Amino acid sequence: MNGGDGPHSYLNNSNLQRKATDACRTMIEEAIAQKLDVKCFSSNPFRLADLGCSVGPNTFKAMQHIVEAVERKYLAQGLKSEMPEFQVFFNDHVANDFNTLFASLPTERRYFACGVPGSFHDRLFPESSIHFMFSSHALHWLSKVPEELLDKNSPAWNRGRIHCTSAPDEVSHAYAAQFDHDVEIFLNARAKELVVGGMIVLLIPALPNGIPASQSPFGVMFDLLGASLMDMAKEGLINEAQVDSFNLPVYAASREQMTDLVKRNGCFTIERMELVYPTSKLVDRFCGNECGMLLRAGMEGIIAKHFGSGIIDELFDRFSKKSVEFSHQLESSKRGGAQLFAALRRK
Amino acid sequence: MNGGDGPHSYLNNSNLQRKATDACRTMIEEAIAQKLDVKCFSSNPFRLADLGCSVGPNTFKAMQHIVEAVERKYLAQGLKSEMPEFQVFFNDHVANDFNTLFASLPTERRYFACGVPGSFHDRLFPESSIHFMFSSHALHWLSKVPEELLDKNSPAWNRGRIHCTSAPDEVSHAYAAQFDHDVEIFLNARAKELVVGGMIVLLIPALPNGIPASQSPFGVMFDLLGASLMDMAKEGLINEAQVDSFNLPVYAASREQMTDLVKRNGCFTIERMELVYPTSKLVDRFCGNECGMLLRAGMEGIIAKHFGSGIIDELFDRFSKKSVEFSHQLESSKRGGAQLFAALRRK
Repeated sequence: MNGGDGPHSYLNNSNLQRKATDACRTMIEEAIAQKLDVKCFSSNPFRLADLGCSVGPNTFKAMQHIVEAVERKYLAQGLKSEMPEFQVFFNDHVANDFNTLFASLPTERRYFACGVPGSFHDRLFPESSIHFMFSSHALHWLSKVPEELLDKNSPAWNRGRIHCTSAPDEVSHAYAAQFDHDVEIFLNARAKELVVGGMIVLLIPALPNGIPASQSPFGVMFDLLGASLMDMAKEGLINEAQVDSFNLPVYAASREQMTDLVKRNGCFTIERMELVYPTSKLVDRFCGNECGMLLRAGMEGIIAKHFGSGIIDELFDRFSKKSVEFSHQLESSKRGGAQLFAALRRK
Repeated sequence: MNGGDGPHSYLNNSNLQRKATDACRTMIEEAIAQKLDVKCFSSNPFRLADLGCSVGPNTFKAMQHIVEAVERKYLAQGLKSEMPEFQVFFNDHVANDFNTLFASLPTERRYFACGVPGSFHDRLFPESSIHFMFSSHALHWLSKVPEELLDKNSPAWNRGRIHCTSAPDEVSHAYAAQFDHDVEIFLNARAKELVVGGMIVLLIPALPNGIPASQSPFGVMFDLLGASLMDMAKEGLINEAQVDSFNLPVYAASREQMTDLVKRNGCFTIERMELVYPTSKLVDRFCGNECGMLLRAGMEGIIAKHFGSGIIDELFDRFSKKSVEFSHQLESSKRGGAQLFAALRRK
C-alpha cells in the first residue's frame, strides 16, 4: 500500500475498503455477541490483532468497533468486574509505513497499541497469546507470484497478461494452488497464536459462484490495467517481456474454496461464512480517475518495483481513460463484486 | 534521535551508547542470573521491553543479550522443558523512526518483535504483562523543560544558557524537580506493567558525588553548545531571545537521588544500584568532529524544532571547533563521565 498521506496514499484512497468493512460491521458484532465466549479466557488483557492493517484510518475504526463489541460481550456475560484492558497489535509487512500509522493513532483510544512488522504468511505472535484476530482486504494478497507463470515452457506461462482473469485454465489453477498453499500456512500460524475459543474474522474480495473472474470488478480492472501496459509495450515505452514477467499477486476465492481450506486445516470451527455484495450500493462512480486512484493506492508499489516508478503516472492516466471507455463493462461487473465474510473459532 | 541511516543518523552515531551498554553486559547477566526468579512466572511467553529503544543496532544487541541470559536462567533453574517463547516490545516516542527500526530487525532473532509508540512517562502496556524491562540512555530525557526556566520573573530564568550546567542553583533545582517528577511517573507506570518478580534494568548518564555538572563530559559539551549558540546570536545569525527560551531537556542524576526516588516510590526492591565509569576507557578522541556527530545525532531534532533546521550545519561546525579549542576541559571531564546502573525488582 502507498504510505504517507499524499494524494496517492492508501490513507486517502481506501474508501472502498472502508465501505466494505462498514457493510460487515453488524456481522462482526453478531459474531462477537453470539460466538465469542469471553468466560473461557482466563487472562487479562484481551489481545486483538489486525493482520494486514495498512496505515489507517480503516484499521482504527475496525479496532475501536471490535473493542466496543467485546466490552458489550463482557457486560452481557455478567463480567463487568472482570472487564479487561485491551492491547491491539497492528500487523503489516515490514515495508508498511508504520511511522504514518503510529502518528495517526487515535489519541482517545481505549487500548494499548503495538505495531508488528512481518508477513502473516509466517508466525507473528507467541503461542496462545491472541484472543481475536481481524483481517480485512489482505488475505487475497498471495505470498508470491506462482512460479509457473514465469516459465516459458509451462502451459501456465502468462504471456501478455498480468493476472488470471481472461487467462487459460492453467493460469487460474496456478493462482488457486498458490492461494490454497498460502491460506493453509496462514491458518496453521493463526491456530498456534490464538487461544482456544479465540476467533478470527476475515473479509476478502471473493468470486460469487458462476461468475468468471473476468466479469468481477477487479477482474475488469486488472484486464484494463494489463491492456494499458500492453499498449505501452507496443508503443515501445516499456518492454513486452517485462509485461510477460509481471503478474499481480492477488486472488479472489469462492466461498466453497475457502470453506474447503478451513475444513482441511481442521483447527477452526466455521461460525459464519457467507458472501456479501456491497459493491453495487457502494461504488457509484466506478470508473475514470476515482477508479484509477483506488487501484494505484494498492498497486503502485509492486508495479513501480517491476517497471520502475517512471511509468506510473502514464500508466494510470491510460488506465483511467480506458476505464471510462469500458465503463459499461465495469458497470455490469458490479454484480460480481462480492466479498467473503468468514468468522472462525479456534477449537 | 535522528532517524534513517544517513551520516548524521543515530544508527551511525551511537557508538558511545553501545560501548556504555557493553560495559554493563556482565552486570545485566548477573542481575538476571542472581535476582530474576523465573519460577514465579506462570505464563508463556516471556515478554520484555526496551524503553526508549531508538533505531538500533544497540537495542537489538541488548535484547538478544537479555533473551540469552533469561534462557540460561531457565536452564539453571531446571526449567528446560518450560522454556518460553519470547516477545520483545521496542518502545520509543511516536516520532521515532520505527520504519528504519523494523527494516533493520535481525532476521535470525529468537523473539517475536513489536513496536510500541509512546512516551514512557505514560502507560505503555497492559497491567502485569511484562517480565523484564530495559532502558538505556533514555530516562535522562525529561518529559518537558521545567516551566520556570522560561519565566523572566523567576530566579530560575535560564538566560543565555541551554542547560543547568554552570547555572544558578535555582536552575539546577528546577531540573532536579522535573526529573524527580518524571521518574515518579515512570516508576508508577512500570510498577503497573511489570509482573510481580519482574525486573527493570536502567542505564542512565549520572553524576558522581562531588562532581559539578559543569565538569562532566556532557556538561562541558552542553556549555560549548550553548556558547556556540550565543556566538551565533551575537553575530545576528539567530535571535538571543531564542537562546534564552531554549533549554535541553536532559538531566544527569546522582546515585543518591535515584536511590531516594525508588525508595519513595515503594514498589520496587533495589537489587543493584551503582555508578560505572566507562568514559575514560571508551572515549579516546572525545573532541572535534566525532564529538559533534555524537551530540548532533541525539540533539539535532529538538534544536531544529526550536531554531529551524537552517542553523544545524553551522552550529555543529562551530561546536566541533570549540570542542577542539577546549579539548583540555573535555579531557579532564572524563572522570565525571559516569553512568548509573540500576536493577530493580517489582515487589
